[in-house]
Amino acid sequence: MSFGKKEYEFLKEIGIGPRTPGCYINGQWKGNGALVSSVNPASNQTIAEVLEASLQDYEDGMQACYEAAKLWMQVPAPKRGDIVRQIGDALRAKLQQLGRLVSLEMGKILAEGIGEVQEIIDMCDFAVGLSRQLNGSIIPSERPNHMMFETWNPLGIVAVITAFNFPCAVLGWNACIALVCGNCVVWKGAPTTPLVTIAMTKIVAGVLEKNNLPGAIFTAFCGGAEIGQAIAKDARIPLVSFTGSSKVGLMVQQTVNKRFGKCLLELSGNNAIIVMDDADIELAVRSVLFAAVGTAGQRCTTCRRLLLHESLYDKVLGRLLDVYKQVKIGDPLEKGTLLGPLHTRTLQENFEKGIQNIKSQGGKILTGGSVIESEGNFVQPTIVEISPDADVVKEELFAPVLYVMKFQTLKEAIEINNSVPQGLSSSIFTCRPEVIFRWIGDADLQEVIVG
Amino acid sequence: MSFGKKEYEFLKEIGIGPRTPGCYINGQWKGNGALVSSVNPASNQTIAEVLEASLQDYEDGMQACYEAAKLWMQVPAPKRGDIVRQIGDALRAKLQQLGRLVSLEMGKILAEGIGEVQEIIDMCDFAVGLSRQLNGSIIPSERPNHMMFETWNPLGIVAVITAFNFPCAVLGWNACIALVCGNCVVWKGAPTTPLVTIAMTKIVAGVLEKNNLPGAIFTAFCGGAEIGQAIAKDARIPLVSFTGSSKVGLMVQQTVNKRFGKCLLELSGNNAIIVMDDADIELAVRSVLFAAVGTAGQRCTTCRRLLLHESLYDKVLGRLLDVYKQVKIGDPLEKGTLLGPLHTRTLQENFEKGIQNIKSQGGKILTGGSVIESEGNFVQPTIVEISPDADVVKEELFAPVLYVMKFQTLKEAIEINNSVPQGLSSSIFTCRPEVIFRWIGDADLQEVIVG
Amino acid sequence: MSFGKKEYEFLKEIGIGPRTPGCYINGQWKGNGALVSSVNPASNQTIAEVLEASLQDYEDGMQACYEAAKLWMQVPAPKRGDIVRQIGDALRAKLQQLGRLVSLEMGKILAEGIGEVQEIIDMCDFAVGLSRQLNGSIIPSERPNHMMFETWNPLGIVAVITAFNFPCAVLGWNACIALVCGNCVVWKGAPTTPLVTIAMTKIVAGVLEKNNLPGAIFTAFCGGAEIGQAIAKDARIPLVSFTGSSKVGLMVQQTVNKRFGKCLLELSGNNAIIVMDDADIELAVRSVLFAAVGTAGQRCTTCRRLLLHESLYDKVLGRLLDVYKQVKIGDPLEKGTLLGPLHTRTLQENFEKGIQNIKSQGGKILTGGSVIESEGNFVQPTIVEISPDADVVKEELFAPVLYVMKFQTLKEAIEINNSVPQGLSSSIFTCRPEVIFRWIGDADLQEVIVG
Amino acid sequence: MSFGKKEYEFLKEIGIGPRTPGCYINGQWKGNGALVSSVNPASNQTIAEVLEASLQDYEDGMQACYEAAKLWMQVPAPKRGDIVRQIGDALRAKLQQLGRLVSLEMGKILAEGIGEVQEIIDMCDFAVGLSRQLNGSIIPSERPNHMMFETWNPLGIVAVITAFNFPCAVLGWNACIALVCGNCVVWKGAPTTPLVTIAMTKIVAGVLEKNNLPGAIFTAFCGGAEIGQAIAKDARIPLVSFTGSSKVGLMVQQTVNKRFGKCLLELSGNNAIIVMDDADIELAVRSVLFAAVGTAGQRCTTCRRLLLHESLYDKVLGRLLDVYKQVKIGDPLEKGTLLGPLHTRTLQENFEKGIQNIKSQGGKILTGGSVIESEGNFVQPTIVEISPDADVVKEELFAPVLYVMKFQTLKEAIEINNSVPQGLSSSIFTCRPEVIFRWIGDADLQEVIVG
Repeated sequence: MSFGKKEYEFLKEIGIGPRTPGCYINGQWKGNGALVSSVNPASNQTIAEVLEASLQDYEDGMQACYEAAKLWMQVPAPKRGDIVRQIGDALRAKLQQLGRLVSLEMGKILAEGIGEVQEIIDMCDFAVGLSRQLNGSIIPSERPNHMMFETWNPLGIVAVITAFNFPCAVLGWNACIALVCGNCVVWKGAPTTPLVTIAMTKIVAGVLEKNNLPGAIFTAFCGGAEIGQAIAKDARIPLVSFTGSSKVGLMVQQTVNKRFGKCLLELSGNNAIIVMDDADIELAVRSVLFAAVGTAGQRCTTCRRLLLHESLYDKVLGRLLDVYKQVKIGDPLEKGTLLGPLHTRTLQENFEKGIQNIKSQGGKILTGGSVIESEGNFVQPTIVEISPDADVVKEELFAPVLYVMKFQTLKEAIEINNSVPQGLSSSIFTCRPEVIFRWIGDADLQEVIVG
Repeated sequence: MSFGKKEYEFLKEIGIGPRTPGCYINGQWKGNGALVSSVNPASNQTIAEVLEASLQDYEDGMQACYEAAKLWMQVPAPKRGDIVRQIGDALRAKLQQLGRLVSLEMGKILAEGIGEVQEIIDMCDFAVGLSRQLNGSIIPSERPNHMMFETWNPLGIVAVITAFNFPCAVLGWNACIALVCGNCVVWKGAPTTPLVTIAMTKIVAGVLEKNNLPGAIFTAFCGGAEIGQAIAKDARIPLVSFTGSSKVGLMVQQTVNKRFGKCLLELSGNNAIIVMDDADIELAVRSVLFAAVGTAGQRCTTCRRLLLHESLYDKVLGRLLDVYKQVKIGDPLEKGTLLGPLHTRTLQENFEKGIQNIKSQGGKILTGGSVIESEGNFVQPTIVEISPDADVVKEELFAPVLYVMKFQTLKEAIEINNSVPQGLSSSIFTCRPEVIFRWIGDADLQEVIVG
Repeated sequence: MSFGKKEYEFLKEIGIGPRTPGCYINGQWKGNGALVSSVNPASNQTIAEVLEASLQDYEDGMQACYEAAKLWMQVPAPKRGDIVRQIGDALRAKLQQLGRLVSLEMGKILAEGIGEVQEIIDMCDFAVGLSRQLNGSIIPSERPNHMMFETWNPLGIVAVITAFNFPCAVLGWNACIALVCGNCVVWKGAPTTPLVTIAMTKIVAGVLEKNNLPGAIFTAFCGGAEIGQAIAKDARIPLVSFTGSSKVGLMVQQTVNKRFGKCLLELSGNNAIIVMDDADIELAVRSVLFAAVGTAGQRCTTCRRLLLHESLYDKVLGRLLDVYKQVKIGDPLEKGTLLGPLHTRTLQENFEKGIQNIKSQGGKILTGGSVIESEGNFVQPTIVEISPDADVVKEELFAPVLYVMKFQTLKEAIEINNSVPQGLSSSIFTCRPEVIFRWIGDADLQEVIVG
Repeated sequence: MSFGKKEYEFLKEIGIGPRTPGCYINGQWKGNGALVSSVNPASNQTIAEVLEASLQDYEDGMQACYEAAKLWMQVPAPKRGDIVRQIGDALRAKLQQLGRLVSLEMGKILAEGIGEVQEIIDMCDFAVGLSRQLNGSIIPSERPNHMMFETWNPLGIVAVITAFNFPCAVLGWNACIALVCGNCVVWKGAPTTPLVTIAMTKIVAGVLEKNNLPGAIFTAFCGGAEIGQAIAKDARIPLVSFTGSSKVGLMVQQTVNKRFGKCLLELSGNNAIIVMDDADIELAVRSVLFAAVGTAGQRCTTCRRLLLHESLYDKVLGRLLDVYKQVKIGDPLEKGTLLGPLHTRTLQENFEKGIQNIKSQGGKILTGGSVIESEGNFVQPTIVEISPDADVVKEELFAPVLYVMKFQTLKEAIEINNSVPQGLSSSIFTCRPEVIFRWIGDADLQEVIVG
């Protein structure tokens, strides 16, 4: 274990030791489940060890959380807002260390790691304002001398199951709002990023304790599928927010719905960038690079398909191949690195299998296409020329692989954009207002997936 | 068949003949499925016959609707609002006849039949206003010189599956909003109220045709489970609104979610009225009568449980038994009738089975408890004294059966109220503001079901 | 008097006779003030005569209105909405006649006359929807177990003082909202459009009477400055909406504010159209024609200043001079007429004085510039080349006179646009998104007047 | 001068010295106007001296502010929000000292002084949330393929003129919102509370400077009527927020409106508490004491009229006379003090004149009624029995004088409540929901002043 290394010393400042219990249950740190290692994806060496939750830990934590919910929902909303404000301030004080940990454990570059923590801070600020705006309604009735009242009651407990690629930002989106609305939060972080789960939870726990509030208001578990299933089945949890693959998301949803619970799902994406004939090429190239290679292609919003108008196909592609060659690959914590490792060895293997598939379906590797031999899970940023109809194009390969295609008309581009089952966030580069407005307001039947 | 009867003559004025095709497909009336009879629940005699949809009819209808959706979503929202305004006016012109048909075919009393149609008219007025308020947002970004745009795009097609107890109002809630938002509507009415489905659709169709719009914007099918399943599976329908039993609702939801569609479910209820020690007794008695006996207990919002404070238990119960005796039972179209028949013979049989269960679980019949021998599906309005813990109390018996219970404290009353799995709309009678505010703002963990 | 003329016969259908009392007071038509003539601006012949309000009429009307306000604010908002819905329907039934009257009496062309009435109908539809959305708020407090309530109470009476150029639309904007919000309306129409005031009021009165509501809910006075001053001073009127000149508006405001009343002012404008170097010229020319010549330049939103980029100055100007020559001037009720008369002989004289001023300040008349000798108040549509610094350019000449200027940069154009004291609604023609967004989001200090 | 006193040492921590320039102009502290003394109302001894603004200072400050406005409105709203967040944090760090200064200079008790500063902190938190919600609208048009955009542009500069009784909270309400909306703020504090003006401004200035923003974004002047008039006339200031007397407010409004500027006025109040026959007497008595004696009766929301139902008139009055006798009068900074001095000797003299008037109009002094001989401006808390029709009752005597009246019915109580020209914030004590709802929803014509 490399915990003693000098570069890991900052971990102490955010509450991480060589072997840390991974569950925050009823205000106490425990872990009676498996002992797991957190691994640095740039070296595949263990950073530190964590004790996961057992099912008994889960049950203990949920019982305490269920009790805490009765108290938390009675705390006035503006006071809940003040707790969230304090969480934001506590995060600000440790922004650098938390961001560094995100990079170290997840593998994304430092600017992205810090940016992820900043997102939670921004959410805290937003939620504080919301805490004074959770207004109900007094509705005039058609009956004389009658008014109808409509108020928002807390659900009680909101569970948040997050994925490795955003090991803490997704918690922030969900938890900040849930907390000011009067709900307790149960968090299961990704099994491969337990240190982020622990460090974030320690920040929140510190604020709760300082305010003499039950720690169980925020309950966190390091753990895997077993804990996830327990959450999905648990009738004490009216709302489960899940981020991850569409396959697992569907299972969670079916389980939660069976008990008439609610789900909030953030699943796959297969996003296109369309570059029109009048686009600002340099702006487009810079954006594509960021969108396709950022976070090593492991975002749900990663650009996976580049649709180029035939008139500038060669020009844009040429520029892209240039800039891809200059991408600095390496330790995400090092200055200047643009592309860190994939998060796990398995994802590296998936990349290799994916490249095989691409080739077998007629894809032509224009740059990249190989794993990089090293201790870490590095791969080359890759551009593939391929038909929009190839099966692989419809799937989400979680790696920095970009499919390039040619089109002639906007209509055709929108059709290609809409030809995948899991669109999420596409974009267009053009200078013509009428194209922008058609894009924004477009109401082709398939377009609804563009969101 | 009794279609020729003089009292059925009004049916011609709303487009119903002795044998009517039950599908409005691509602007034409068809029906290649089963020939079914619409039956008067007050006499169990056939009113008229209807041709249901075949699966081929369904497919034809959906294809036309899918094409129409592309056009309808391009119609400016305020113009869509004007179509809905015209639908409202067309309903106003036939309010009496449509209300009469609802009473005749469903079995609810005339005031309720007319009231149901009026609800759709009110929804139309509301939706017209909304058609000029479907605003997107321009959101200030933290990046200088950047604005973010957020607009609402139509889903495309919204399916509405409705139940026999509100054979048209539920359509109104869903369709008016869906139409102004730019969605086509596919409606499957209840299998036992096909005449309402047809008459309502003819009103809408008339407006579409007068405005030279494709009839397929509003597509309607008479039919049963087969058509319902086709809708649930159909990936062309992003949103399915279902009203009916929790059991069927769950199946619909699982099917729709499997294809990542959205569901809007209106299922069972088991509602309580709590009468506090300081309540206005006459107001409470009148309200309980209306809530427990109205629509013959066949509403999801029917009051099924009456929780009386021990201090006025005897007094309120005495008054209730008095007024129950005066309830006029009979033909729902007759003046003065307060309680019409149950909708089907099966529901009458369920009532009988339910009474058996009640007795076997210790329930004491204070009044009613029997079916009324006649051609129709009439039953007596029934009051039962029973423990809140009895299993039958937790279930939804779709009939005018009211369980009466005693409590000592507000806390106890709320616990009883929350002890059923499917709460929906409970209410409380009191004169003390602090009780009202506790009731409104109550945040006990189980209270969330009170909504 | 020409009332007997065949082309005036339609006036009977909307309640106008040869001599009509001009006040709707406590549900009755009266008029003890001056006898005035309504004059056709295309011929300066009397259409019909009207009896204006005396100060005693005013006082009688206000007392009844004040009493009616107590009743009207108790009518549930959705029922008030239904009254407004019926007003909308009643206007629809007389749309052609009312639009014709607006053209006849005000002088604007028929399409504009009908459009003005349609605006009120649209406002009715919008207000009906609002009548079910006048929600108050239930605000969570920072004190435990406390909620704050905020509800909207009606003001009581809203006075609406309108101008000749929109003799009824402005009433619609104000009255529809005021009525659904629970306020009675007191209307003083323009002294020179009494027939529109009477015809519109008869529509509203008809609906109130049909619903057995006090006519005093809507109280209308034909009259001049004396009645206007009485309104401004009247402490029974918490809100006065005034449309007209900035000079009179300021007097009204000072008078109303002195009694701590509220004002809603719609005053002058001096609007620019900026045509950038990349603009679609044909679209721009068509728009300028409509904006500068429409309503004979008598709108607060009339385009008075045309700012052309130097690169297309000659081209756009050339095209404009072409189309100005083709403008058909004449009877506004005649098919094909694009430019009707000015509303009064005084306005025609002001036009002549204005042209003199323009010339003396260095303005060059490129086309038009003269009155047209005839019985009516016709003038030529006029284009003037002039420096943006000339004093006349800063003033609002209520006539179809367009000042053309040249600019080199967007910044310069915006400065010119902002160099007048009373900007209102400017616009820009360009194809570049960055210009559009700068225009929308522009935050130059003077830009606030662009709205 | 007593600045050297030990108990004034805390002033150094918030930037106050024995002689401090009172203008923050273009990021610098100056003062070329009169040298004035800040006086402790509990002793009438000078605390420290301040240099007020000259008219040239005003002009210098406004020019810098006008330039800064161009920059500040370009700062993205969320970044403006972050500045306001930092102001909130800086206030938190000096909460005790600032609160102490408010008590010392204004004369209100310490809990109120600290509470006033806390209000600004709360406003900061609220405004931070708003900074991400200043959304414009994208409005669907009735024209096909058209959307309308509506965005909020900053006004530029907002002036805030505050009064002595809330020397800083009122700034907070106005400035926090103005700043996040993109407006610069010009503040003129009350002439008799210059130290609060300076100390508050130093907090804001510190944050601006730390963020390398122009200090002129927040411009502050100590000064009197001359500066106030300059603000009212200044066309560079589109919105003037004024708090103070109705008389001065009216003058400000007339001046600002003359240049078509906007006003936000917080003027006098004459508030009633109505105690119904079923009220919780102890709760009512406690509330009346706080409402009538708090801030020594120098709030616009002070309760000046107590309306008691005849059935409990004697009982409530008896209890009130008891508690009034126990009110501890003295140094507002001392623990246990409930009633501090009036703010100035002039207000003390007004109190004396007021008591004379009361007596001459038939008022009967039940307790209090005299000034307290001492170095400070102390007066006795006073209860007067008087007819609701007496003239003095309609006026606002800025002192702890409470008029007690008897009523028989709710209707009568509301009429008395509404019989004054300047109602603001009345309240009612009752246990009956129907009274509460009538009170909330009351729509009697005069009731609008209750707000």
